[in-house]
Amino acid sequence: MPKHTAVKDYIRTIPDFPHQGIMFRDVTTLFADPRGFRMAIDQMLHPYAGMRIDKVVGLEARGFILGGAIAHQLGTGFVPIRKQGKLPGATLSQDYKLEYGEATVEIHDDAIQPGEKILVVDDLLATGGTAAAGIKLIERLGGEIVSCSFIIDLPELGGGKVLESMGMDVHVLCEFEGE
Amino acid sequence: MPKHTAVKDYIRTIPDFPHQGIMFRDVTTLFADPRGFRMAIDQMLHPYAGMRIDKVVGLEARGFILGGAIAHQLGTGFVPIRKQGKLPGATLSQDYKLEYGEATVEIHDDAIQPGEKILVVDDLLATGGTAAAGIKLIERLGGEIVSCSFIIDLPELGGGKVLESMGMDVHVLCEFEGE
Repeated sequence: MPKHTAVKDYIRTIPDFPHQGIMFRDVTTLFADPRGFRMAIDQMLHPYAGMRIDKVVGLEARGFILGGAIAHQLGTGFVPIRKQGKLPGATLSQDYKLEYGEATVEIHDDAIQPGEKILVVDDLLATGGTAAAGIKLIERLGGEIVSCSFIIDLPELGGGKVLESMGMDVHVLCEFEGE
Repeated sequence: MPKHTAVKDYIRTIPDFPHQGIMFRDVTTLFADPRGFRMAIDQMLHPYAGMRIDKVVGLEARGFILGGAIAHQLGTGFVPIRKQGKLPGATLSQDYKLEYGEATVEIHDDAIQPGEKILVVDDLLATGGTAAAGIKLIERLGGEIVSCSFIIDLPELGGGKVLESMGMDVHVLCEFEGE
């Protein structure tokens, strides 16, 4: 039987990380495999062939791995959205809710020019909280988001609906339910 | 006069970040520019043309951006070295000294097979502490390090000598002194 013909086959599940009851979907096994990594990048870019993209924005930290590869493949620049306090220049900040408490993400305030076409990338779409905060930062700078591209969707957590309610085009490569 | 003909021209210096007296060399302006980002990746790979590289290892977090692009360009897998507690699977850990205190980096214990040829990448070589810890992790897994490639060297901080004393080949694109 053929092996590893889909991106999902390369993703490893680690039970009870980072805490009891969570099935963690681990993309490091996908990234470590040359065929898997290449397939993931190709499939993430597939819907955007022929479209104008000026910059790729990646969400810290696994979105940096994907964003670096995708920006290089497209011949665009790469812009990081980081956790609070990590970016050295003048930033815009956006708070968002976590299961317990709040978090903040930041972008350099000169990283995107008004009207630039932006592709947002990350490995995992769960509740969509981080992505939604990142989208707000990009839109506050006048960036026009072409699409948001993820490897994994966890549809039970509703992030896809959250981003679509913000008017986003959302693209995912695979889904995991409570399996 | 021609502008932006060298990678160094795209790098921004932010005084007093993360604390008073530090001249922070900010590569986000390099990464955000399509020509700058492409030039950096091309030059980082230039010394290794024709050489066997099986995996690219990137150090958290800016090394992920470079490592993703370089692994994709080479057609290899990518392996992250992360701060303690971030990797979900079974890991090896390595402590190293900071100016004040200690830090720990980790790698998945199945991320590299003995004899694999490894390229280590990060944005900045300062004291070399993080890179040296990463090198030890790779060597504990039996990986054979082809070279360590950085965008920036701060030669006053001596990281290049530290890595060369470990038998490493070290490649950098530019240097900053106390300027």
